[in-house]
Amino acid sequence: MKNLHKLALTVMAGLVFSACGQKAEVEKPKVAVEPAASTASAPTPAATPVAVKESLIKPIPVPTVAEPAKVELGKKLWFDTRLSKSGALSCNSCHNLMTSGTDNLTSSIGHKWVEGPINSPTVYNSVFNIKQFWDGRADTLKAQAGGPIENPKEMASTHEHVVTVLNSIPQYQAEFKKAYNVDQISIDQVVDAIALFEETLVTPNSRFDKWLTGDEQALNEQEKKGYELFNSVGCIACHNGPGVGGTSFQKFGVYGKYLTKNGATGRAGVTKNPDEMMVFKVPNLRNIDLTYPYFHDGAVNSLAEAVNIMGKIQLNKTFTAEENAQIVAFLKTLTGERPKLEMPLLPPSTEKTPLPQPYAKK
Amino acid sequence: MKNLHKLALTVMAGLVFSACGQKAEVEKPKVAVEPAASTASAPTPAATPVAVKESLIKPIPVPTVAEPAKVELGKKLWFDTRLSKSGALSCNSCHNLMTSGTDNLTSSIGHKWVEGPINSPTVYNSVFNIKQFWDGRADTLKAQAGGPIENPKEMASTHEHVVTVLNSIPQYQAEFKKAYNVDQISIDQVVDAIALFEETLVTPNSRFDKWLTGDEQALNEQEKKGYELFNSVGCIACHNGPGVGGTSFQKFGVYGKYLTKNGATGRAGVTKNPDEMMVFKVPNLRNIDLTYPYFHDGAVNSLAEAVNIMGKIQLNKTFTAEENAQIVAFLKTLTGERPKLEMPLLPPSTEKTPLPQPYAKK
Repeated sequence: MKNLHKLALTVMAGLVFSACGQKAEVEKPKVAVEPAASTASAPTPAATPVAVKESLIKPIPVPTVAEPAKVELGKKLWFDTRLSKSGALSCNSCHNLMTSGTDNLTSSIGHKWVEGPINSPTVYNSVFNIKQFWDGRADTLKAQAGGPIENPKEMASTHEHVVTVLNSIPQYQAEFKKAYNVDQISIDQVVDAIALFEETLVTPNSRFDKWLTGDEQALNEQEKKGYELFNSVGCIACHNGPGVGGTSFQKFGVYGKYLTKNGATGRAGVTKNPDEMMVFKVPNLRNIDLTYPYFHDGAVNSLAEAVNIMGKIQLNKTFTAEENAQIVAFLKTLTGERPKLEMPLLPPSTEKTPLPQPYAKK
Repeated sequence: MKNLHKLALTVMAGLVFSACGQKAEVEKPKVAVEPAASTASAPTPAATPVAVKESLIKPIPVPTVAEPAKVELGKKLWFDTRLSKSGALSCNSCHNLMTSGTDNLTSSIGHKWVEGPINSPTVYNSVFNIKQFWDGRADTLKAQAGGPIENPKEMASTHEHVVTVLNSIPQYQAEFKKAYNVDQISIDQVVDAIALFEETLVTPNSRFDKWLTGDEQALNEQEKKGYELFNSVGCIACHNGPGVGGTSFQKFGVYGKYLTKNGATGRAGVTKNPDEMMVFKVPNLRNIDLTYPYFHDGAVNSLAEAVNIMGKIQLNKTFTAEENAQIVAFLKTLTGERPKLEMPLLPPSTEKTPLPQPYAKK
């Protein structure tokens, strides 16, 4: 393992600072990663726990909920369609917690069935991302949460509307009072609660994490070979950390252009730096077997095909069928345990609540 | 109470067989109502249980699940957006179990944001309805479940597509094998499982049911007066049974036309009998405080206004403000306990699974 680790670090250094042509922006992770503590409290601990293996990939810690009243409120808001203009779309419409934390569509359906500009990234393990959105235009989950609510092509609402709706519902008022000690709900508390709920949406105890934390039987030989390849060819240089990605921005198409009809320009749209055209936040690979279709344009449905494209245009490497199968087998071991959530029961509107407007002309 | 009951029966006889001009179609209820047993096993039993009070309204029994594997499968299918052409709509889109079993919209949003023709009735307690849909065109929940899936203005899929999707997913295959002992999934099992899940979606232990089963403190004086009025003026003639409705078809607009832009013709569209124009299944009033907006056109948002309209056009009665408030207060005691459901985790598609087509031209 030590050799593997060294190799990975060497490859990483080469890739991150030269091949990728993009300095990694590494920020303080939002949730402290404490693998020893997390595996101790995991529901299905490894058979014989030992020290965490050296790897650029870190096991996902089981989250601890510091403020349950806020998280519970965030869960309600997450599923509440009254945050949208139509009264029909919620956070969960595009980030479905029953599937993969995405909608598994090429791009999401917004207000009045408008086709979204980019593939919806998974909310699961998004707490481990250095920034949010494909282009990193939001620094935090809290900053992200307000965006889709008032994007006319997504939920098409306004922060003012959301606040008026919530303040008209006595049960929400009482819950915000309890959680935030406020008499009038503001958008700041709304997005704070949603972000705190999102921080709990992590998927620990994947087979890979079990192996990382000492269960040698958790992976078979093909999967271990896939992990070794993932290290040796350099995938891990960008796909690392607890999210197996989400820790840096990288150019998509280092050794060749990625052909797409999608118009996203990536990081350049945020920084206005033309050198950052097609530079995107590296997607996290946790639960990658569930989060199809792949890439920012959602154009690729096959994980095997996605691996080959990545090899070719990011690493100038053509995988043999055997190598491809090994990497795919390894990637499937990254599927963790999605949280088991009790469905929230949402409080009813009152006659003061502004009506949803699904069919309004404007 | 006995006098009240006698009065109600007298009024009922008058209304159902003359004023409504429509013979009630009463069928065998699909779930046996056993109030004694149900209150005994209720999570929050009445303080001092006594015999169930005489009333045309029956307490909702706590459901017993005879076939848990089928119900669990039905729950997964209920939330699975892959049953729609777009991959974005599920049963829950229009019958949201987190709110009222409806979408709380005037009429529902279908494939490509098509405006639905009629207000979505609640799925909660729909097991107590004699037939399904506003016009009763489906005899059973099972017969109903297949409709929206292939309605081009709703989920816009086909039964063939649904079956192909489900058969392409090994975890669904295994669960159907376990529940139905079949190797190939058919639409008959799909709608059967959904219907069995729906049968569990009842809301027992409302304050009214607690009062009915002996807890005298469960209702206040205003609410009791509202119930007495509900009996004496004749509402109960049509709104009765465990669903407080759903037991018969009645003309909407006995003493005056209900003004609406909605084009629904009611039962006449099914039976081709012109005498049944504007004859609809009587909506169930359970959780009526949650199932706004009201009537088949969803045009009325205020429960107080709905009560006044019903008084006027169904009973030729103008309620005083005090009477209206009493009836509204009583109706709010019909809000029961919605089931606490663990959110299902849906199995991923495979490369054999047909892709969703949210933006397809045809």
